[in-house]
Amino acid sequence: RRGEMAKSTQLIDNEVFRAYATYAAIVLIKMMLMSLITAYFRITRKAFSNPEDTESFGKGENAKKYLRTDPDVERVRRGHLNDLENIVPFFGIGLLYALSGPELSTALLHFRIFTGARILHTLAYLIPLPQPGRGLSWAVGYSVTFSMAYKVLKTAWLL
Amino acid sequence: RRGEMAKSTQLIDNEVFRAYATYAAIVLIKMMLMSLITAYFRITRKAFSNPEDTESFGKGENAKKYLRTDPDVERVRRGHLNDLENIVPFFGIGLLYALSGPELSTALLHFRIFTGARILHTLAYLIPLPQPGRGLSWAVGYSVTFSMAYKVLKTAWLL
Amino acid sequence: RRGEMAKSTQLIDNEVFRAYATYAAIVLIKMMLMSLITAYFRITRKAFSNPEDTESFGKGENAKKYLRTDPDVERVRRGHLNDLENIVPFFGIGLLYALSGPELSTALLHFRIFTGARILHTLAYLIPLPQPGRGLSWAVGYSVTFSMAYKVLKTAWLL
Repeated sequence: RRGEMAKSTQLIDNEVFRAYATYAAIVLIKMMLMSLITAYFRITRKAFSNPEDTESFGKGENAKKYLRTDPDVERVRRGHLNDLENIVPFFGIGLLYALSGPELSTALLHFRIFTGARILHTLAYLIPLPQPGRGLSWAVGYSVTFSMAYKVLKTAWLL
Repeated sequence: RRGEMAKSTQLIDNEVFRAYATYAAIVLIKMMLMSLITAYFRITRKAFSNPEDTESFGKGENAKKYLRTDPDVERVRRGHLNDLENIVPFFGIGLLYALSGPELSTALLHFRIFTGARILHTLAYLIPLPQPGRGLSWAVGYSVTFSMAYKVLKTAWLL
Repeated sequence: RRGEMAKSTQLIDNEVFRAYATYAAIVLIKMMLMSLITAYFRITRKAFSNPEDTESFGKGENAKKYLRTDPDVERVRRGHLNDLENIVPFFGIGLLYALSGPELSTALLHFRIFTGARILHTLAYLIPLPQPGRGLSWAVGYSVTFSMAYKVLKTAWLL
């Protein structure tokens, strides 16, 4: 079983790639959890975007009043969009970086700092923490992705 | 020609990876089609976001009235954003999953259910279907991605 | 060192994959720069979304007036979202395309046209240029991604 797996999927036997797969899965799951938090606030705050979502509250004007924006819902949605803007580039550039032959220790440093920074960013957004908490955690994750992009371009450069 | 391809790109000769590439391309194309549907509703409803997009309707106040939001346009845009929030994690986690050595039949089951669920989700959003149609199709796709993430973390775990 | 890298990461030694990694990194970096441009306009226009971001302007009503939308900020944000809707599918489909064994010259043509089109799209959005400048640059990038998706489905098709 194991031999067969190694033959068909060598990438996953590479330690850097395994580290990448672990951290990439963790931050993608973290991003996906934002959907559940949005749903939680939509239901508890009774604030929906689609008429068909308010039908369980009755018909007509009674249901219409739940078609509204709510500050808590909007806050989670901004956090979710910020994840898309930052975790998606990390996934993409991180994949190319993991395939560019970095040292395992250097790669782990990048993946761990990024993952920690994005978890802090979400906490800073949702609690919310006073600035510059959210700003700094954003900047740390952003810088890690740029550092990986530099390594990718240095290794792969073929224009 | 074929021998050369196999040498340089072994991944695409792996059946699980071919299945992944097929379904990933299908859902990414489905996501991209949301742009065309948005454009269709923007033009037919005459509802634009940018002043330069309304210039063909004349100058000044006459054009300004088309800088507005429209319920149909906003509905498609919410569907598009939901695709970004769900299809992008599927692409990322699905790639790692396809490289983690799953059985072909198990992998196909995951890819097929996700793809079907997301097509239903789009239909439920655009028609629109009464709830819980959209909610259920969202939950099915979401669960499939989590199931793949579990397999990735079990196989790759290197923190 | 080099031998070790080649052993563990053969993909990056493939010329098509190196070209893909180069252009994918460039467009992902371009997309990430939209965050900095948004921050620049938020600060110079004093237009924020989160109460904690306005605290340096004082407390209460004085700070509250900076919780507002600004046309320049919204324009950059629309450009950023358009990047997510187009550059992310390019990254995903481009990766599968690079692994599907295309000729290097054909692949370079795709990657170069897409990258040029998206840089033009950003310029057209931010300057802004009159239409159909932005529309055409969007359509060119969109078509390139579809052309790659066609090659992926032709090579990998396993439903």
